Amino acid sequence: MYQIFDDVSSPGASGERVKALQRELRSRKLKGFLVPHSDEHQDEFLSPSAERLAWLTGFTGSAGVAIVLDKAAALFVDGRYILQARAQADATLFEVLQTPEAKASSWLTGKLNKGSAVGYDPALHTIKEVERLTETLGKAGIKLEPVAANPIDAIWQERPKPSSAPIVPHGLEFAGRSAQDKIRDVQTLLRQEKADAVLLTMLDSIAWLFNIRGGDIRHMPVALAFAIVPANGRPTLFIEAAKVGGNVRGDLGEFLDIAAPDALMGKLKALGQAKARVRLDPETAPIRFAQALEAEGAKFVPGADPCVLSKAIKNAAEIKGARAAHLRDGVAMARFLAWIDEVGDSGRIDEIAAAIRLEDCRRESGQLKDISFDTISAAGPNGAIVHYRPTTKGKRTLKAGSLYLIDSGGQYPDGTTDVTRTVAIGAPTPEMRRHYGLVLKAHIAIATARFPKGTRGQDLDPFARRPLWEAGLDFDHGTGHGVGSYLSVHEGPQRLSRLGTVELEPGMILSNEPGFYREDHYGIRLENLLLVTPPDKIAGGTREMMGFETLTLVPFDRRLIDAKQLVPFEIAWLNAYHARVRREVEPVLLSDDRAWLRHATAHIG
Amino acid sequence: MYQIFDDVSSPGASGERVKALQRELRSRKLKGFLVPHSDEHQDEFLSPSAERLAWLTGFTGSAGVAIVLDKAAALFVDGRYILQARAQADATLFEVLQTPEAKASSWLTGKLNKGSAVGYDPALHTIKEVERLTETLGKAGIKLEPVAANPIDAIWQERPKPSSAPIVPHGLEFAGRSAQDKIRDVQTLLRQEKADAVLLTMLDSIAWLFNIRGGDIRHMPVALAFAIVPANGRPTLFIEAAKVGGNVRGDLGEFLDIAAPDALMGKLKALGQAKARVRLDPETAPIRFAQALEAEGAKFVPGADPCVLSKAIKNAAEIKGARAAHLRDGVAMARFLAWIDEVGDSGRIDEIAAAIRLEDCRRESGQLKDISFDTISAAGPNGAIVHYRPTTKGKRTLKAGSLYLIDSGGQYPDGTTDVTRTVAIGAPTPEMRRHYGLVLKAHIAIATARFPKGTRGQDLDPFARRPLWEAGLDFDHGTGHGVGSYLSVHEGPQRLSRLGTVELEPGMILSNEPGFYREDHYGIRLENLLLVTPPDKIAGGTREMMGFETLTLVPFDRRLIDAKQLVPFEIAWLNAYHARVRREVEPVLLSDDRAWLRHATAHIG
Repeated sequence: MYQIFDDVSSPGASGERVKALQRELRSRKLKGFLVPHSDEHQDEFLSPSAERLAWLTGFTGSAGVAIVLDKAAALFVDGRYILQARAQADATLFEVLQTPEAKASSWLTGKLNKGSAVGYDPALHTIKEVERLTETLGKAGIKLEPVAANPIDAIWQERPKPSSAPIVPHGLEFAGRSAQDKIRDVQTLLRQEKADAVLLTMLDSIAWLFNIRGGDIRHMPVALAFAIVPANGRPTLFIEAAKVGGNVRGDLGEFLDIAAPDALMGKLKALGQAKARVRLDPETAPIRFAQALEAEGAKFVPGADPCVLSKAIKNAAEIKGARAAHLRDGVAMARFLAWIDEVGDSGRIDEIAAAIRLEDCRRESGQLKDISFDTISAAGPNGAIVHYRPTTKGKRTLKAGSLYLIDSGGQYPDGTTDVTRTVAIGAPTPEMRRHYGLVLKAHIAIATARFPKGTRGQDLDPFARRPLWEAGLDFDHGTGHGVGSYLSVHEGPQRLSRLGTVELEPGMILSNEPGFYREDHYGIRLENLLLVTPPDKIAGGTREMMGFETLTLVPFDRRLIDAKQLVPFEIAWLNAYHARVRREVEPVLLSDDRAWLRHATAHIG
Repeated sequence: MYQIFDDVSSPGASGERVKALQRELRSRKLKGFLVPHSDEHQDEFLSPSAERLAWLTGFTGSAGVAIVLDKAAALFVDGRYILQARAQADATLFEVLQTPEAKASSWLTGKLNKGSAVGYDPALHTIKEVERLTETLGKAGIKLEPVAANPIDAIWQERPKPSSAPIVPHGLEFAGRSAQDKIRDVQTLLRQEKADAVLLTMLDSIAWLFNIRGGDIRHMPVALAFAIVPANGRPTLFIEAAKVGGNVRGDLGEFLDIAAPDALMGKLKALGQAKARVRLDPETAPIRFAQALEAEGAKFVPGADPCVLSKAIKNAAEIKGARAAHLRDGVAMARFLAWIDEVGDSGRIDEIAAAIRLEDCRRESGQLKDISFDTISAAGPNGAIVHYRPTTKGKRTLKAGSLYLIDSGGQYPDGTTDVTRTVAIGAPTPEMRRHYGLVLKAHIAIATARFPKGTRGQDLDPFARRPLWEAGLDFDHGTGHGVGSYLSVHEGPQRLSRLGTVELEPGMILSNEPGFYREDHYGIRLENLLLVTPPDKIAGGTREMMGFETLTLVPFDRRLIDAKQLVPFEIAWLNAYHARVRREVEPVLLSDDRAWLRHATAHIG
């Protein structure tokens, strides 16, 4: 099993831990300390040894920051996590406050004298983040002070050992380009920009650049590492020696040097002494490295991680892999949905049993490396909680007359998948069908969009919202995120959202996942992955247009679809999509599920 | 007549003028000089005495900049104006180059030594513009040097006298709020932001704030002036005394002081000596004022012109005025379109005759103060030139089998209008009808949009493009611009465009003008003005949505509409709109045009 359902939060221990931290801060003469949910790589998922915020507060959400002072503490989270934070953190220890309405600066103003300094670990905050914090806290007269070592690490007993999972090569048949070729491109850019080197801190960039995969982070096949790529010469990969087995050491040694993570600071020092111009991404690189470089005389050159855009634009081998992974994933989803249709309304299936069943269906392919994120298996009202994850204690049983929402994905060697379906358990109400129809319209509006070069994600996001806006409804998340190639399931820079300012390029993969959430009743989300297609002629047109190829191959629940709610082009798209799902999935499906698939993909309207 | 059709360009004189300017530059030891199309107020329309670029180059477009060196000169314009610039400027004197592909910095690099300085008039360039220029020219090793007086003014013989049109009060029945009330809001903001004063440089802001209108600029009822509003106390209006007649002097004197324009620099000096914090809009204020303030010890506080957003959100009186102005304008357009239907295919009507006829129809209301911009009266292929303006020399005759595009507007005391219609002259081709239908779909997609608070113009612009994108077509301008209330026909900050990052607010007025342009054949543009309506409940919805009320009341050409190309909601919108136009316009139309209106608004589909 790739996922566990225990509630890992242990707020009972927080009292002792906060006290210990306060003692530690006093001994270091610090008035306070910031504890963010982050590691040195700004990963979405943390390795257990980096879960400092959860260890201290009990809060296990994926974003938030605690501030601990000598006599007070607060936990700041955004709207997605406010209920979870209140449930998990001990309110006698932490004021739980919602950002952006609550501001750390205002909270601190009331608690500290002007001119006081609050400590932070420069390994855990990015350059931009510290800039912003310095400005906002500065208005409140509070200073920020970097610490040499994280005080939590000094008091955290039984801290999990860092993972030492071995790295493996990511074969050329999946990667499509050699590491040497990619490195050459990065070096060309560095020379153009007159930088002497770039320090890479994002784990998926490092995995992509060197065509390696690792096992240090849950659901994301990367290894904890840093890398320096010089404008000329061999890159250095800073990684625990134990992770580099004989099978990869030789191959990697052909184009890079391997060094211990401890050696990184020494290398930065050397760059500083050589007065090198070193590129760092201010949005993702810990400020620690910028400080170290500048202290030694290097020039810190701000610039986006040079791997990010190239990684987002998938090449032919990666696209081929994505199609194969989605066919395999479609088979698993068909097996799962057939099972749900059979037993979902029996009153014997709970959210965890369903999630495990789906994981088993994916595993049957023999090629599943991991799931791509903790499965959102949400019965009835839990579907309305966008980031819901079932736990052993809080799980719900699927019941007739409700909706069931399942958002899940797989990590396969040839691709990463992410799919959401909402299905009726028993007979749906007319209102469920009306809302499902609106979300389906939103989904089809994106799937069928055509658009010229230069179009940004934010230009398309409104197409998904229009059917909902017309009905006085909306959803409070973006319409889609970028997806990696056997890498992170949430990958930038492309996204379909109000904030999606990056232009879409052929080869990018994005999710298309509009939703509607009726609090305390049900949630509906319909998610396929899309591939951006190259500009193409349209009969009678004068300009070539890009578009989307839908990669996901999973039927939509026909019981929730009222053809009368759809217009002809929507029905045509749906029938063509279902015909394609049947054509592609049926031949590789075991015979007992074929009848289900044929029924699930039958003509509508 | 409010417009003239003579070609005002006189490139024949450019040779002498460029030589005179080069002599003047040498005498001042300047290597070169920038001549932008702008005045001290960043107006869209310039007063004749500010037309330095046209005087020097012959180019009369509304955007562009010339650079004159000792032995070379270039004229930089954007894509809209490249053909016009090539036609108007003497190619033996000016290299005509298209931005943004051509860059002034690259051009200068080849011509000047590193470290050379190019002069500019700090009264004509904004703070932001000089920042950007300093950066881009800096990369090429070129410096910028402000001049104390514009060298063109020293050599321009027979320069037109500045206008001395009197200012008039803008009555409370139209303005809806007293000047005192508006000034109080500005002062509250200044105190909140801890600024001691704001310097206003935009003419429509000054006219709006003090409830005055003027006659110094073509088609825009404003007076050349500056104003300083202190955080406490009385504002000062810097304006030629001749413009302030007895009828307004007393009323204005109740809440402001009047001073001569020459007194402004002295006042800035005094603010500097008082170490005042003075707010200036970096996007619109000439850098000259920031330089003067800082030289004297003031602190320049960057911040948006505090009138801009308030001015854009129309109050009840302004909305009432807009509706009345549009009804009046609809009557004029109906009279005009009826006439075009009658004589348009006779071969006797040219573009100028049509524009004059429309101006006459508007004048019949007895309330027309001016037209709101030079009429785009474009027959056949001229319609494909987005910024076309007919001239006595180049005018075209309306011919059967073609399309005619007319984009025009009026300035009335209660509102500013702007409307575009495209009509068939004789029988249209199937292709004309297909393209017209696509533009109509685009128009209706905007007119019918519903959207939540927080929606920006850029979120709606794609709705207009989608029908065109699906057909492999697009248009190269924004979908809509803000419109003033008896003020500028192009008003910020709201806009429907890729660049529209400002959130829409109830009471804003915007144009809705998608188009399609088939080069050398025809242009189609359909423009109504829209009023943003307040958030409103929708049956079955959970969130209130804003929307648009269409203000313009002019039929669309039924001969160009193929009902089969439209979907039911589009036909329903069109029929409801036409019924409303008939209901509102018919009672105030003279009887001989009523039959035309009834036919033009008859049921479709």
